[in-house]
Amino acid sequence: MKVIIVGGVAGGASCAARLRRLDEKAEIVLVERGPYVSYANCGLPYHVGGSIEKESSLLVATEQMFRTTFNVDCRTNCEVVGISTKAKTVDLKNTTTGAVTKEKYDRLVLSPGAAPIRPPLPGLDLPGIFSVRTVPDARHIREWLERDQEQDVGYAFKGVDSVSKSKRAVVVGGGFIGLEMVENFRERGLEVTLVEKLDQVMPPLDLEMAKLVERYLVKHGVHVELSDGVAGFRKSTDGALEVLTEKGKVHPADIVIMAIGVRPETELAKAAGLEIGKRGGIRVDEQMRTSEPDVFAVGDAVEVKDFVTGEWTLIPLAGPANRQGRIVADVIAGRKSRFRGTQGTSICKLFGAAIASTGVSEKTLKRLGDTDYEKIYLYPNSHAGYYPGAKVLVVKAIFRKSNGKLLGAQVLGEDGVPKRIDSFAMAIQMGCTIYDLEEAELCYAPPFGSAKDPVNFAGMVAADVLRGDMPLAHWESVDGKFLLDVRNPAEIAAESVSGAVSIPLPQLRSRLGELPRDQEIHVICRSAVRAYFATRILLQNGFKARNISGGMLARSHRAV
Amino acid sequence: MKVIIVGGVAGGASCAARLRRLDEKAEIVLVERGPYVSYANCGLPYHVGGSIEKESSLLVATEQMFRTTFNVDCRTNCEVVGISTKAKTVDLKNTTTGAVTKEKYDRLVLSPGAAPIRPPLPGLDLPGIFSVRTVPDARHIREWLERDQEQDVGYAFKGVDSVSKSKRAVVVGGGFIGLEMVENFRERGLEVTLVEKLDQVMPPLDLEMAKLVERYLVKHGVHVELSDGVAGFRKSTDGALEVLTEKGKVHPADIVIMAIGVRPETELAKAAGLEIGKRGGIRVDEQMRTSEPDVFAVGDAVEVKDFVTGEWTLIPLAGPANRQGRIVADVIAGRKSRFRGTQGTSICKLFGAAIASTGVSEKTLKRLGDTDYEKIYLYPNSHAGYYPGAKVLVVKAIFRKSNGKLLGAQVLGEDGVPKRIDSFAMAIQMGCTIYDLEEAELCYAPPFGSAKDPVNFAGMVAADVLRGDMPLAHWESVDGKFLLDVRNPAEIAAESVSGAVSIPLPQLRSRLGELPRDQEIHVICRSAVRAYFATRILLQNGFKARNISGGMLARSHRAV
Repeated sequence: MKVIIVGGVAGGASCAARLRRLDEKAEIVLVERGPYVSYANCGLPYHVGGSIEKESSLLVATEQMFRTTFNVDCRTNCEVVGISTKAKTVDLKNTTTGAVTKEKYDRLVLSPGAAPIRPPLPGLDLPGIFSVRTVPDARHIREWLERDQEQDVGYAFKGVDSVSKSKRAVVVGGGFIGLEMVENFRERGLEVTLVEKLDQVMPPLDLEMAKLVERYLVKHGVHVELSDGVAGFRKSTDGALEVLTEKGKVHPADIVIMAIGVRPETELAKAAGLEIGKRGGIRVDEQMRTSEPDVFAVGDAVEVKDFVTGEWTLIPLAGPANRQGRIVADVIAGRKSRFRGTQGTSICKLFGAAIASTGVSEKTLKRLGDTDYEKIYLYPNSHAGYYPGAKVLVVKAIFRKSNGKLLGAQVLGEDGVPKRIDSFAMAIQMGCTIYDLEEAELCYAPPFGSAKDPVNFAGMVAADVLRGDMPLAHWESVDGKFLLDVRNPAEIAAESVSGAVSIPLPQLRSRLGELPRDQEIHVICRSAVRAYFATRILLQNGFKARNISGGMLARSHRAV
Repeated sequence: MKVIIVGGVAGGASCAARLRRLDEKAEIVLVERGPYVSYANCGLPYHVGGSIEKESSLLVATEQMFRTTFNVDCRTNCEVVGISTKAKTVDLKNTTTGAVTKEKYDRLVLSPGAAPIRPPLPGLDLPGIFSVRTVPDARHIREWLERDQEQDVGYAFKGVDSVSKSKRAVVVGGGFIGLEMVENFRERGLEVTLVEKLDQVMPPLDLEMAKLVERYLVKHGVHVELSDGVAGFRKSTDGALEVLTEKGKVHPADIVIMAIGVRPETELAKAAGLEIGKRGGIRVDEQMRTSEPDVFAVGDAVEVKDFVTGEWTLIPLAGPANRQGRIVADVIAGRKSRFRGTQGTSICKLFGAAIASTGVSEKTLKRLGDTDYEKIYLYPNSHAGYYPGAKVLVVKAIFRKSNGKLLGAQVLGEDGVPKRIDSFAMAIQMGCTIYDLEEAELCYAPPFGSAKDPVNFAGMVAADVLRGDMPLAHWESVDGKFLLDVRNPAEIAAESVSGAVSIPLPQLRSRLGELPRDQEIHVICRSAVRAYFATRILLQNGFKARNISGGMLARSHRAV
């Protein structure tokens, strides 16, 4: 049995190592176009930023290790340039010598990854415009920045004050890699402009959650330009770059990063006649088998099922790629493993904060025309408020109205985000309802959580909604409604809601006579906790009432 | 409907607040023996240590707030001294005036908590010996320490060098409160001796995991005395205290903390004829109802079902108490809520580390005579090793041999512990198998995790065991077995295993002839990863082989 694996990072490398463990006798050839196998591409932005100083730190496993430990015929600088599924052969090109040889396979595994999207923009090939995909990419970016620094030092010696002048970076694209590059450029002291064609950064998030990220970027000195695409690039008279936008803006730049997304590398698969899905990825079944029974594909190049929505999706993340690589090894070794699909769990560090999501977003549900859902906004402390260092977490949870099933969660904050998103992720995987979240027994000590953890709290609030104890409203639908603000006068003096009637919560029971019985009362407080208490008082006294989810805190970043 | 709730912290306070939300008309009386309701008793050690500076920070909700916001008749300094379940009355004593009045109830809720165990030891009432249960306890400890400081200053003025002399604390008991007090005393600069009657600290952990905690305490300058109980206390000639142990040791002390555990406060329940369970807690059903249908009980005073083992247990933790309080409110309001039982999730901060567990421990399984389980030890990085700040996590996972169900997990480390223990906790709650853990899609970015998260990794290793791919051995059963060490020579030079044959992994395939075919080969490496690769090579070449779980790292803290 001879297995050729095309692509030596994440999925491909995992597949090779696992297959060797399962089958000591198989002939395994691991082919990698670039100079390194199994490198940490997720670490590239941090290498540019300098927090990962040594390039060698990014090399997780070496060609030598694959040869000795795994007895894998590992070939770097070797590219597959053709596949014949009929003859079961691949054409292998030595990228150093250019020589092409034909080699037979019994099973072929494609792990080609995804390439940065490079639209045909004028000036895109100018020096100083980079993508971030490979170790050499990161090296070239560092060299470019350091070259500039050397020039600066030169100027300084000549008495020109340019050492203190920050370099200017323009990052195009506000997704994961874009934001990581923004952070790392800022940490190197660059001036950074982020240009994003959409009206929000961080596409997995809903718009109102992304607004908080945008605000956080601005707070950290990033110049954010949303709803404006890049039209082209040119060299300015002083030798620097200029980024031209569709709206006619000109952003000067000493370096430009293109991070507008990736597209599956499918040229080889297409040429071999493999089926390609609607989203542009290689179509595979649950065993990661392509339309050709002896050809498998894994990682960023394939489409997978989102098991929450049932849709085909592209999920260019390392976790699924690694699991898929293992599954293919199992299947080749004759086992029944299957990929269960993805739920889109992701997290991104941004300065002191983390931005995370799992499951489905509201905008996806809207796109699917799915209206059987409700959402809540919460602003709990990351741990007991009386213990130092607690930070406010922003939580959006989305669940089925009809059965309480948790559908998705988005969590932002400067402390405790990974703990919560992983609880939500595990909950979604296991088909958890919000009633299960209510009763979850999560770890608690004052430095790490609260007796009612934010995850419990999400369950409790959602259960109050579904049990009918707390009719809910959202800011996008309160126009013209009767608004009752139960905050205290000092809070209202600091920020009021126009048209809202004010009755502080402690006075509510004695001032019910001031409220209308013929209108639905929409109750406001800071975070919707006191408004919940007020809603309960009103409902039990025969009023119609709704709590505005997330209160003033949700209002501060609402999408409308 | 008149509801009297006895005990105004955690369970009692939660019950009062929730009941008011569900029933605006009920008459709710919240009775608290002490001066404060709803205070943060979990924060008391940190108030002693000073990281929570102000006592007022510990007061989560005030009597005033219960009166105005919740319309609850809240009475502090008021103790229930008798119950007649026949007449449905309680005797209420004003602890300030001593006056006792009788009051009728329709429903009674007992949330009396648990009291520190104070065995009848000679000298236990000497000044300077404290428990840590209430806000006044913490205040008295602080006053005692500060009084001593003032004395020191006095000595210093007299030219006696005692300002620089550290105060000496003896903490009796190595559970949560004991360890938290140890940490906080150390952070105040005290010399600390920990005396524990058992052979381990942190009772929820298994012995070998607790050994790491013991080592961590020693590393942080704590003098740890295990397997020695306290026999008594006396005043020494210099006015300080002396702690006498059962083994005849004498530990001088300027302050002593008794933290040997708590026992449910059941005097009142017993006097009222309520059923008490075998573990000494008030017996309740799933709706938290005692043997008297109109009397409920919650929190540290009750026994609950451990839903993993099915056993009755005492679980004096804030999370379950709060949830139980809510459930009683629901039930009184006519709802069908029920307490699902506990899984014993807990966490403790200790200097820079966190110590956490969820589900069942191995020692509990042994006590129950349950042999249908396997365990694994893992030492993964808290996040991608190439990103700065990664720390080794120590993970013990326990699962059913027959069906793969996750039974328990213990996690220690200086980074990323809460994220992992909550994933395990949610997994256990939802009846997860180790095959589910293998496929879990948890959040990953280099600062927060790995493409294969430690939780995935636990699933993968456990699945390798249950699928028969990796027969496992443990250090406690390798005596006299054939040992193969596949580490490299430098590692073996640093620490070797006596009697082990050495073949570095990269040479294994070419040196198989040196190994016996008639004996089971037990393979050793640093953390059991390379030994797993070696085990696979051996098995597929017709040898009998087992991987020693956790390798040298597990050996370093093994219980035998």
